[in-house]
Amino acid sequence: MHRFNYQRSNLYAEGIKVENIIKQFGTPLYIYSANTILDHFFKLKHAFKVLNPLICFSMKSNSSLAIIRLLVKSGSGIDVVSGGELYKAIKAGCPGVKIVYAGVGKREDEIETAIKAGILFFNVESVPELEKINKIAKRCKKIQSVCIRLNPDVDAKTHKYITTGKKETKFGLPYKVAKSIFKNKSKYKNVKIEGIHLHIGSQIVRLDPFLKAIKVALELKKEVDFEYLNIGGGLGIIYKNEKPLLPDQYAREIEKLLKGSKVKLILEPGRFIVGNAGILVTRVVYFKKGINKNFAITDGGMNLLLRPALYEAYHEINLVKKKNKPKVKMDIVGPVCESSDFLGQDRILPVPKEGEALAVFGAGAYGSAMASVYNGHPLCAEVLVNEKEVYLVKKKENYRDLIQNDLIPDFLR
Amino acid sequence: MHRFNYQRSNLYAEGIKVENIIKQFGTPLYIYSANTILDHFFKLKHAFKVLNPLICFSMKSNSSLAIIRLLVKSGSGIDVVSGGELYKAIKAGCPGVKIVYAGVGKREDEIETAIKAGILFFNVESVPELEKINKIAKRCKKIQSVCIRLNPDVDAKTHKYITTGKKETKFGLPYKVAKSIFKNKSKYKNVKIEGIHLHIGSQIVRLDPFLKAIKVALELKKEVDFEYLNIGGGLGIIYKNEKPLLPDQYAREIEKLLKGSKVKLILEPGRFIVGNAGILVTRVVYFKKGINKNFAITDGGMNLLLRPALYEAYHEINLVKKKNKPKVKMDIVGPVCESSDFLGQDRILPVPKEGEALAVFGAGAYGSAMASVYNGHPLCAEVLVNEKEVYLVKKKENYRDLIQNDLIPDFLR
Repeated sequence: MHRFNYQRSNLYAEGIKVENIIKQFGTPLYIYSANTILDHFFKLKHAFKVLNPLICFSMKSNSSLAIIRLLVKSGSGIDVVSGGELYKAIKAGCPGVKIVYAGVGKREDEIETAIKAGILFFNVESVPELEKINKIAKRCKKIQSVCIRLNPDVDAKTHKYITTGKKETKFGLPYKVAKSIFKNKSKYKNVKIEGIHLHIGSQIVRLDPFLKAIKVALELKKEVDFEYLNIGGGLGIIYKNEKPLLPDQYAREIEKLLKGSKVKLILEPGRFIVGNAGILVTRVVYFKKGINKNFAITDGGMNLLLRPALYEAYHEINLVKKKNKPKVKMDIVGPVCESSDFLGQDRILPVPKEGEALAVFGAGAYGSAMASVYNGHPLCAEVLVNEKEVYLVKKKENYRDLIQNDLIPDFLR
Repeated sequence: MHRFNYQRSNLYAEGIKVENIIKQFGTPLYIYSANTILDHFFKLKHAFKVLNPLICFSMKSNSSLAIIRLLVKSGSGIDVVSGGELYKAIKAGCPGVKIVYAGVGKREDEIETAIKAGILFFNVESVPELEKINKIAKRCKKIQSVCIRLNPDVDAKTHKYITTGKKETKFGLPYKVAKSIFKNKSKYKNVKIEGIHLHIGSQIVRLDPFLKAIKVALELKKEVDFEYLNIGGGLGIIYKNEKPLLPDQYAREIEKLLKGSKVKLILEPGRFIVGNAGILVTRVVYFKKGINKNFAITDGGMNLLLRPALYEAYHEINLVKKKNKPKVKMDIVGPVCESSDFLGQDRILPVPKEGEALAVFGAGAYGSAMASVYNGHPLCAEVLVNEKEVYLVKKKENYRDLIQNDLIPDFLR
């Protein structure tokens, strides 16, 4: 459920007309709904109330400081994947004990900062990483808790680019290696190996890959003991006509599996929380009749929302103010000079006039998080709506920002 | 020809050891060779000396201010595709009369700024855009020169994402429409329609698509007269074993075609100038033996170089300091939490140690230009080498930069 709905023909973000929001903040614009975010967070929390997990929002899906703050204030932990994300999680007020840190390429400086920040766990992706954490923890005179990321060799049945639990991927450790790490725990004096981490991919709409992966972890638990089970994220959402898992259904099945196992559970939802809690609003600059195609050319494209280009992802698109006009087929494309720059293809919509605004739905996750200034388009503003109030949470970049780190050497002056 | 060569086992950027450069500036790091850039620019200029074209560097391929400045100082014009790029071209000292402005989504504010800056041409992509330019020029009391971008419906035989001259793409205008615009010139009182613009795609290694497109333009010239012919960019380079066109070969064929036509020629090279003039240097953070794959995990990935993920593009990768060790097959992958985050797959290299640096070649075009801070990794530094001197031309972003535009609303404090 999200809070972007039409009343008569006007799109609302919670209690505010989107038209009024863009009058104030311009386009392109990311609009987030605070209560959709909270609704999703609490839905998950409620579904899992028997298991009472620590829910760590996966901020790679959306790293707007205000959104992280909103979730942290509501009791969420944060799943970070870099020193930059750790910095932002802390800036958003997340206590170290609610931060888990994943990722295959943790650098020494990042590990040291995280240990000093007192994070709950590293999710360890390789033996050399474990050794590095042990070494740095020793230098810092600390005992650092970690989970071992297990690669369960399970096919998540999602896009190949967001499948992470098959043995061909760079993620996690094979069963045998994970087992031998537990068996040889005592080698790592400054590390406390407390659990298993699983994360098999993103936008998964089937139950069986999740259950299969957890069963592999439970198999391991029979051989070596551990206290924490971090089952990662990956819950799919509705972009088009997906039939994703309901949180209750997901929770019940996991409850059944974990019965009697006494593990402490951790969840790392990202897309599930924010995916449908954000829209990208972009104005039509031109409507162009091509040779055998029509194009609605908008002021935001792949620079702001890369998913269609990168994953051939589908996003619902509609007029911010619907109108009763004859509909035609068109591609919705951005201003970037690449044929990959589209937001939607072969959509049936009324011909938009110049200046009319389109809402691209389901843009809350992996939208602004993957944005770039490609083609010299500054990053756009972002706002957060809370019932009848709207707050600027990210200022639009200006042209000066584009060159703030550029230097011209003397020999070119 | 580029200036990144091994002397014994050490990689040099022009006259400097790359190892010394990264000791000073760290990794990940983009390193550009000034003299490779100039060599390519002058090679093209020389090849075309009979036709004496205006060469406008396509800055979407690389928008480092120092590189633009280097080319502008050498007499290059600039091809821009947004208000942001226009701003940077001007900051780099490019005179308006050497700026051409393309792109399907030019906004009103961008057009006005460009008119006021006295740019040479807009490359017009649609009739509504032409009308808009006319309207704004009138308001500014100016006569603005334009070229009409002709969509010649030619297949450039390159990746579908960088094909731009087929009728299914959003770019340019069909022959008939272009012709009727010239026939009805007088309708546009504040616009001077002076030429035809062609740009059929990028990384094109065959001659025939170029010639076919130019022939379509010359066909049109028999029916309506124009003075300028802008044949765009698109010249392919060597990433792996491509056999691209030589500038001389390209120029001779175009000379033949244009004989007697008296058009003034414009070129818009991007990749040809900078593609092989830049490398991305990234250090190995871990070498990981996967279940049935090996991974060299580096400190820079798709966040800094998106081409492998987006276009399945190939880049040569080698150790900055070669070594005589047994070679194994491995994927070179970045630190980003996606399976799409790879720089190279199935490469045969000596097993790199932690901290050893890899050079990703051919990273000068569409490298830093498409970079993002996805997964919270700040943008990296960039340096320009000129013989035995190295200059910092882009400062590395810091963590604070990641949140410089973020705001936390009062209700979340």
